[in-house]
Amino acid sequence: MSLRELQALAGEIRAFLVSSVRETGGHLASNLGVVELTIALHYCFDSPGDKIVWDVGHQCYVHKLLTGRGAGFKTLRARGGMSGFPKASESPHDAFNTGHASTSVSAALGLAAARDLAGEGGAVIAVIGDGAMSGGLAFEALNCAGRAGTNLIVILNDNQMSISKSAGALTNYLNDLRTRRTYLSAKRGLSRLLEKTPLVGGLLAGAASGFKNFMKQMLVPPTVFDDYGFNYIGPADGHDLRRLISVLERVKGMKGPILLHVHTKKGKGCPEAELDPERFHSVNQKSNDTEEISEVREWNTYSDVFGWQITRLAEKNGRIAAITAAMPASVGLSGFRERFPDRFFDVGIAEGHAVTFAAGLAKGGFIPVVAVYSTFLQRGYDQILHDAAISNLHVVFAVDRAGISGGDGETHQGLYDLAYLSHIPNMVVMTPKNRWEFADMLEFALEHPAPTAIRYPRGAAGGIFKEARAPVELGRAEVIESGRDIILIFAGDMAETAAAVSERLKKDGRSPALVNIRFIKPVDGELVRSLAEYRYVFTLETAAGSGGLGSIIAREGLCGGFLKNAEFYSFALPDEFVPQGTRSEAMKEYGLDADGVYRRIREIMEKTL
Amino acid sequence: MSLRELQALAGEIRAFLVSSVRETGGHLASNLGVVELTIALHYCFDSPGDKIVWDVGHQCYVHKLLTGRGAGFKTLRARGGMSGFPKASESPHDAFNTGHASTSVSAALGLAAARDLAGEGGAVIAVIGDGAMSGGLAFEALNCAGRAGTNLIVILNDNQMSISKSAGALTNYLNDLRTRRTYLSAKRGLSRLLEKTPLVGGLLAGAASGFKNFMKQMLVPPTVFDDYGFNYIGPADGHDLRRLISVLERVKGMKGPILLHVHTKKGKGCPEAELDPERFHSVNQKSNDTEEISEVREWNTYSDVFGWQITRLAEKNGRIAAITAAMPASVGLSGFRERFPDRFFDVGIAEGHAVTFAAGLAKGGFIPVVAVYSTFLQRGYDQILHDAAISNLHVVFAVDRAGISGGDGETHQGLYDLAYLSHIPNMVVMTPKNRWEFADMLEFALEHPAPTAIRYPRGAAGGIFKEARAPVELGRAEVIESGRDIILIFAGDMAETAAAVSERLKKDGRSPALVNIRFIKPVDGELVRSLAEYRYVFTLETAAGSGGLGSIIAREGLCGGFLKNAEFYSFALPDEFVPQGTRSEAMKEYGLDADGVYRRIREIMEKTL
Repeated sequence: MSLRELQALAGEIRAFLVSSVRETGGHLASNLGVVELTIALHYCFDSPGDKIVWDVGHQCYVHKLLTGRGAGFKTLRARGGMSGFPKASESPHDAFNTGHASTSVSAALGLAAARDLAGEGGAVIAVIGDGAMSGGLAFEALNCAGRAGTNLIVILNDNQMSISKSAGALTNYLNDLRTRRTYLSAKRGLSRLLEKTPLVGGLLAGAASGFKNFMKQMLVPPTVFDDYGFNYIGPADGHDLRRLISVLERVKGMKGPILLHVHTKKGKGCPEAELDPERFHSVNQKSNDTEEISEVREWNTYSDVFGWQITRLAEKNGRIAAITAAMPASVGLSGFRERFPDRFFDVGIAEGHAVTFAAGLAKGGFIPVVAVYSTFLQRGYDQILHDAAISNLHVVFAVDRAGISGGDGETHQGLYDLAYLSHIPNMVVMTPKNRWEFADMLEFALEHPAPTAIRYPRGAAGGIFKEARAPVELGRAEVIESGRDIILIFAGDMAETAAAVSERLKKDGRSPALVNIRFIKPVDGELVRSLAEYRYVFTLETAAGSGGLGSIIAREGLCGGFLKNAEFYSFALPDEFVPQGTRSEAMKEYGLDADGVYRRIREIMEKTL
Repeated sequence: MSLRELQALAGEIRAFLVSSVRETGGHLASNLGVVELTIALHYCFDSPGDKIVWDVGHQCYVHKLLTGRGAGFKTLRARGGMSGFPKASESPHDAFNTGHASTSVSAALGLAAARDLAGEGGAVIAVIGDGAMSGGLAFEALNCAGRAGTNLIVILNDNQMSISKSAGALTNYLNDLRTRRTYLSAKRGLSRLLEKTPLVGGLLAGAASGFKNFMKQMLVPPTVFDDYGFNYIGPADGHDLRRLISVLERVKGMKGPILLHVHTKKGKGCPEAELDPERFHSVNQKSNDTEEISEVREWNTYSDVFGWQITRLAEKNGRIAAITAAMPASVGLSGFRERFPDRFFDVGIAEGHAVTFAAGLAKGGFIPVVAVYSTFLQRGYDQILHDAAISNLHVVFAVDRAGISGGDGETHQGLYDLAYLSHIPNMVVMTPKNRWEFADMLEFALEHPAPTAIRYPRGAAGGIFKEARAPVELGRAEVIESGRDIILIFAGDMAETAAAVSERLKKDGRSPALVNIRFIKPVDGELVRSLAEYRYVFTLETAAGSGGLGSIIAREGLCGGFLKNAEFYSFALPDEFVPQGTRSEAMKEYGLDADGVYRRIREIMEKTL
């Protein structure tokens, strides 16, 4: 294909993306930004022999189009359809599965080491955004790759954004690098000048080797990437196909670790998306399915309630601070940021630092609230345990997007938080049943001087059981309805299912007790003791089965001798990764909707009549 | 105190440390390296008003001496005695509790932000080694601190070591920085020279501001730390008290984030420790208590067995690779490193990268074994889940120092691995009862194509039940003794306790079944079904109670209806952090020794007669 044809292709791809993604929903701005880069990569390299690892992976749509998956866009992010992320099971061109940020250099270095050990050839290329570059994992990998010296190409896709604007010193630094380009020619002139000046030339000739290096450094100041052992090339205009192809051909022939700095514009070619790339990072599906609310906010999501309540409480208490890891708008903190800029901290994609930094703030007398998605807080697990919990510091964790998260699939499900938080001593873990309870729990968390997490789902904050609003008390469940024989204990967003099942059981002439657990940890000891009164004990949660509500009730109930003669069942997600699809599809699939739970309960009751 | 008196003090402290730590055991080499630095810090700054955060914290002994805790050294690392790490509960001079590497800059930045928000004064100082600087968390913090611009002093204690020699490009870079010092004066000369050369001077005079910056950069090449927004000072000789005091006084008056690069020698002043700092990183207590084996290796620890078996298997299978995060000798990989240098990777203190890099190697067709302590693998939790498990890659995790780890206390206990690994889909989690089973499990793990972890304790690899050596089969427990009425199900290093309890029960005329669970995940379904045959079901593990063996058996047993009418008890660590002390002390304290378990079982049996 000629350059002109490639440029035409770029235009077609852009048009296709805008119309197709608007139809299905999905990541738009990041993909519009890498159209030329992806075309140039596939033009210069030969996938799957050459391996491309897409960091985060939501910018892989163009790559999917170019590797024969155009038809898949109709089912993008839908249950059973094409993934919005690289998936090795979908195509051999997807060299490594991604989803979370900052993994690509580590994974690519592993692929490169395997290639070298096997004596094989082929390029290994990691494509990483400047936002993801702030994650510690990317740094660890750069540090190792620079030392390893193996052939590895890291393409830094610098769009000055993660989901929102990038934060951190590296961002400033990259800005400097870009502007430096303007006087590169002046530098070359100076270099020639120095050589010609007799005094300096003589000095050079007689210098020791350390001094020679120093002179070289003076003439071509090394970038931070050179310092890590990379050969830095760039910055190149990521929308200039001709230049991209020429620089990639040059890079292809080079040895050792190369960092190619490419400057792109998120949302390129779609005026709306260029103007507001944060909003167009991910676009909503066209339907009115309110369950599938995307990052385009609608009032009364849990994130909205969070932002409203935290700002309200911070008005009254000057010690409250808020921390986000690169997603201020998505977690609902835009208003807080505006109102309390001094007490607002966006640390960039750096969840581990967010937690330990919060521990430092708490130790210094403040009450930090770390608002991070459930799946991304996995990155801060050790910091929660080691830096917040061991010292019993008052750090609040607002764990957003817990439970089934939707179209992003396996890598973004919030199913492990109950398990990874509840075994940590000193931790308090809560799950709200509706928006009012969430607001109350947040107020409680800000007053309870211990590491305290509240996990809540994506999307609309439910309004069920509005009248049930007993004060939040540490380790105390809320009895919604008393009953006998049967008890349904639910956590957070299983409220609707539990209520519907309870109604059906009542129609069957039963009178089930209905309990909102509120605290997964510490679990209500009085409730556990009371379980001895029931013949049927059921727990319901939208989390991995092992380590959450069902596990805790089972172990404590059994050890205390309160589950003798009881029929027990723990409704939870099974021990497998949950693929993309809407929440309601997954709930149905795994028998966690009202039909599924009711059916299973009937089976158990009939079996044990 | 005069300089001469301070120097004499340094000598006294060194002598005290060598004699005292040799008596009690503890970290020696790292503390000998920071004697002058700590004296200078306390001379120039005023703790606790000025806050010093010690990264990792095992180099805080001199700080403890200078803050009135000399008497505590008699009980260093002993149960109820003085901690080997900073502990706020011990002294207000310990500004932040540490234990794991790379946390200090994050925590100090939090303390500094709290100070600024509260409108208070005082310096905040993080002291971090070059080894810990390779951890991603430290990078995330540097990136944020450089941007934040607050007053913060980071002292880089560069001894070219973590526990063993530092790895990574940063190490090379720091070496360069140190040598660069030798021609600093030459550089200053050149600067003057350029100003005097008319042509260059004229060029300067007429230059734009970008060009001026460029010239400045040429004359004082910025370090990587300057690139992150820090003001870099150094390197300074960390054993020259006069220079240290003068540079700290200068730094004290400076604004914004400062990085002071100090060059020290690990083990300084103790010839043996200087020669072999890895061996003297931590020294053994003098007693013959074989339970408290320190990093000074003795044959037949689990780490030794690991090193022996992995090397043996790698002889036969060229696809086996081994990865360590800065502790090749401690995890038993010295021999492997020597035999297979190409297939050995030391990534430095970078556990997250170790895991994702391994996932890349696995994807490239190799079988990587990641050997990391249980407590440090917490840093790789998200990488295990997201990069290894979702793609079901064949990565083996050799989880060393699981269970009670001893004198290091809360921050180093290996009690959470069963919980943080067992809820991850696709994971296989094993616990060996003795050294032979461990070797067999390792062989199994290298053949089972899924993410597979084996967790084993510190110290001597037990020899109990040598005769029981049934082949390792996925998800299959090992029945050591059949029995009736009572069943004892133990995991790994609870074998000895379980055996002793079983003997006592037999003396009481009982005939308990004794089962080695082997697989915490997937747990043996046939075993779970068979529990219906027993009146008393007991599980035993050295792990947090929530999320481990007891939880899994309780939930699955109950859901399946196999624990009806059973008395059940899960022996595990309670929901609290476990302080320092020997393993036997902790086991006794928490009722996990044979006496405690037997007594509790008798109580349960008597209560339910």
